[in-house]
Amino acid sequence: MKTDIQIAQEATLKPISEIAKSLGLQKEDWEPYGNTKAKLSDQLVDRLSDRQDGKIVLVTSINPTPAGEGKSTVTVGLGQALNKIGKKAVIALREPSLGPVMGLKGGAAGGGYSQVLPMEDINLHFTGDIHAITTANNALSAIIDNHIHRGNKLQIDPRKIEWKRVLDMNDRALREIVIGLGGPSQGIPREDGFNITVASEIMAILCLANSLSDLKERISQIVIGYTYNEEPVTVKDLKVEGALTLLLKDAFKPNLVQTTENTPAIIHGGPFANIAHGCNSIMATKTAAKLGDYVITEAGFGADLGAEKFLNIKARAAKFDPDAVIIVATIRALKMHGGVEKSGLTKENVHALKKGMENLEKHIETIEKFGLPYVVSINKFPTDTIDEINYIEKWCEERKVDVALTDVWAKGGEGGIELAEKIVHKIETNQHKFEHLYPLDMSLEKKIRKIAQVVYGASNIELSNKAKKQLAYFEEQGWGQLPICMAKTQYSLSDDPTLLGKPEGFVITIRELRPSIGAGFIVVLTGEMLTMPGLPKKPAAFKMDVTNDGKVVGLF
Amino acid sequence: MKTDIQIAQEATLKPISEIAKSLGLQKEDWEPYGNTKAKLSDQLVDRLSDRQDGKIVLVTSINPTPAGEGKSTVTVGLGQALNKIGKKAVIALREPSLGPVMGLKGGAAGGGYSQVLPMEDINLHFTGDIHAITTANNALSAIIDNHIHRGNKLQIDPRKIEWKRVLDMNDRALREIVIGLGGPSQGIPREDGFNITVASEIMAILCLANSLSDLKERISQIVIGYTYNEEPVTVKDLKVEGALTLLLKDAFKPNLVQTTENTPAIIHGGPFANIAHGCNSIMATKTAAKLGDYVITEAGFGADLGAEKFLNIKARAAKFDPDAVIIVATIRALKMHGGVEKSGLTKENVHALKKGMENLEKHIETIEKFGLPYVVSINKFPTDTIDEINYIEKWCEERKVDVALTDVWAKGGEGGIELAEKIVHKIETNQHKFEHLYPLDMSLEKKIRKIAQVVYGASNIELSNKAKKQLAYFEEQGWGQLPICMAKTQYSLSDDPTLLGKPEGFVITIRELRPSIGAGFIVVLTGEMLTMPGLPKKPAAFKMDVTNDGKVVGLF
Repeated sequence: MKTDIQIAQEATLKPISEIAKSLGLQKEDWEPYGNTKAKLSDQLVDRLSDRQDGKIVLVTSINPTPAGEGKSTVTVGLGQALNKIGKKAVIALREPSLGPVMGLKGGAAGGGYSQVLPMEDINLHFTGDIHAITTANNALSAIIDNHIHRGNKLQIDPRKIEWKRVLDMNDRALREIVIGLGGPSQGIPREDGFNITVASEIMAILCLANSLSDLKERISQIVIGYTYNEEPVTVKDLKVEGALTLLLKDAFKPNLVQTTENTPAIIHGGPFANIAHGCNSIMATKTAAKLGDYVITEAGFGADLGAEKFLNIKARAAKFDPDAVIIVATIRALKMHGGVEKSGLTKENVHALKKGMENLEKHIETIEKFGLPYVVSINKFPTDTIDEINYIEKWCEERKVDVALTDVWAKGGEGGIELAEKIVHKIETNQHKFEHLYPLDMSLEKKIRKIAQVVYGASNIELSNKAKKQLAYFEEQGWGQLPICMAKTQYSLSDDPTLLGKPEGFVITIRELRPSIGAGFIVVLTGEMLTMPGLPKKPAAFKMDVTNDGKVVGLF
Repeated sequence: MKTDIQIAQEATLKPISEIAKSLGLQKEDWEPYGNTKAKLSDQLVDRLSDRQDGKIVLVTSINPTPAGEGKSTVTVGLGQALNKIGKKAVIALREPSLGPVMGLKGGAAGGGYSQVLPMEDINLHFTGDIHAITTANNALSAIIDNHIHRGNKLQIDPRKIEWKRVLDMNDRALREIVIGLGGPSQGIPREDGFNITVASEIMAILCLANSLSDLKERISQIVIGYTYNEEPVTVKDLKVEGALTLLLKDAFKPNLVQTTENTPAIIHGGPFANIAHGCNSIMATKTAAKLGDYVITEAGFGADLGAEKFLNIKARAAKFDPDAVIIVATIRALKMHGGVEKSGLTKENVHALKKGMENLEKHIETIEKFGLPYVVSINKFPTDTIDEINYIEKWCEERKVDVALTDVWAKGGEGGIELAEKIVHKIETNQHKFEHLYPLDMSLEKKIRKIAQVVYGASNIELSNKAKKQLAYFEEQGWGQLPICMAKTQYSLSDDPTLLGKPEGFVITIRELRPSIGAGFIVVLTGEMLTMPGLPKKPAAFKMDVTNDGKVVGLF
């Protein structure tokens, strides 16, 4: 079997100018970055304001398992399939973070014959967006420490600085550090730490801003910490929203690439799906909607995290209504939710599959709560048996759930035609009405409880003393009108990663809150969230290389 | 008077495709990065191996003063002037570091009507080269700490890790830090620190490598620290030279831009001129020599640092002989060397000028020692008086020193025509023969003494106990064959920054040595070298902004 990088390197890419032309773009709408990548103008949505928006299809999944679900692969494959049945589709995805690429992953841009290309560039520095975010984030850090070093006019309490430095790297040794050592010319000694760049609030802001001026406004509202008098300190107080926005002016422009079948794909932004909202940028999705009749986009992790945030945070900030949802599952993963270990997945087990279906069922309920039409996509694996497939089809038939088998890894768009046809039919015949799960004027505590009960199936929430105090402080600051961004394990509907399937009767413990005022949401932490990953014993980097004539080796 | 950014934004840029075409480049030789920047192929020098190399002109200066000399401006202006007199010239410059741009400088890409454009991009993220170096440097750091965290098979002594992390930022609070705190899942606690990226050995390596395979070989030889048994530990031992080279594959390609008068300029690499060699990349200079009949390039600081290293380190690694040198001075700066304070520079002072000429005289001697022809460029300022100008011209005439007044800031290439004509004449009639200052098989100590005595005019050198031990250890390791990279204050010929003009009878104190085995030189520290700058009280960032339609404000 060929590897992803082999398939990618054998694919025939069109010049990006041809892709741009096929989308009807004019000269001023885009700039080339190499011959197969482009930056799109951030003015494009305005220029095409008369054009009707395409239909937005969100791809989500069951709770992820080590078995793999292939959500990105289905997103790319569905885009290709729509083009095969004569629909003009544009894909909108997140940018991969380099840290995990060098660590465990080796690459993250779809798979097989449903990849975005050039996968080597996309997985490495791409067009430099994440580096620009790293720079803006750390410029702010340097400005904060310099402010204190120079006399601390704002009376920032060095023990209450929430703004961390970042690197796009898996580097556990930087999680907890002490800085400013070595005497009076070296700043103020204080505790600090690095997050991975995709966990930066600036990444979330870049993805939720609707224009360059909105970006600057949001940056100015970032709360970097508190004064000795417990007052929030913002970027506006430090007067660097202009410089930080300047550093992001090109990163703010969406990136255009293509898939293995030359379907246009816009890849832009990649915020964490736990402490941030886990979706590609609003700019990317809106631009795709102006350029295609269908936008296929995804959100991180399962529907309990990614889709919930897409629908309650991103769609609200963007002021668009999504039109339909794809819920991706694999028989392998469903069997894991039914209690099978990873080593036992190659064996047929209809009993475990039946038990695991509860996880899918819960996510279906959630999407129905939002009033959205959906199709379930069962992403095929060679080990799936006829009886297992039959069981799923019967299960869906009994519940009047639309389902399609997809085989886009091996067959590209061809393997997603049934799914494409079903989702088009759903959208064209849909009578549903999209609704957010909660109104913004509900209290923060009530919003949290609503998500926990309706989306996770929890019996209740339990607040730590710290969280209680924070809720009061946040409401007092006027932050109560913001939506909630839950940081919860992706592996379970509950806050315990070992409870697969559909746990019941559990309580969600709310440990702590964090204000992301620039991004425009309140992060709610339900457990220890790792915002700086570590490298494994054998990092993927050990296998990476480049030949003397520049060919990439060891991304997979 | 217009500011640099006003002049830059009023200039008419040609599409980079036109610049590439004017150089005879073919489709496979370059890739666009936006409409006014391009990456040139790293295979171009090989492809054009039959073509005769252009003449290489190095621009250097007297010891820099706060009065300003305008070396980059003269470099750009001379390139433009050569084109005006019908010569095909290509400029080769360093990339500015973002840290100082956000801090003090605000911008560094020539000035007035002799700038490289688009100055906004060049001063900000440009084509991402420095970000790629940051990433490669920090990937190595993460790999080192992960190796120790995972059992430390190589027996690396955490107290003897010389490899520091880097950021392209002025951030004093990161100079001395403690990392790895927080328990056994967070790495090993140890002292560490961040340098600015341009101080990374990887930056020096990128600038001294002759091919991608040479780059990988040099990276594999980096010494990151020592074992408990005092043995050097290299990147090769850690097995990540492939991954690091992969991260640098695009950064290794030289960048093509243009000047205010559309003269082609290759901007690539920007190593520090104290702990590294301070020149743009060999790839850039060699590529420029294949594309132009004249290459105008510069080296950091004065001739005692930049030119000495260009001639002893870069020219040796590149295996090319430079053809001529321009020594830049201003009457203002010479008066400072003659004892005038900055506030008194607007007043005529032939007496101080006469005294300050000693500094210029010493650098002229140095260039003569290398056997190279040269022209002195007096870069005009509005406050220069007739008597001062007459004094310099007479001084030069008496010594048979070729001199030209230049006014390229205000007049562009037109202001450098006399200089262009004189340097062309020098090159065409030259009988000199270029020689390195020392042979590589001389001992490290003798090399250091030779530079100190011949280039600086020191009476002798004095070695600290640490330096003595290191010299013995380095020779024992077989590193004695490498050239020397002196880290000395740029402000004085001596190691005391307050001794301007031409100090005499001084001793250079050698404090410490550092092996840059990958770069291929031994760094010799003569004082405290700051490898991470700090921000000033009012960082330039405070003035920076971007308008809603993307126009840059506040770079100057």
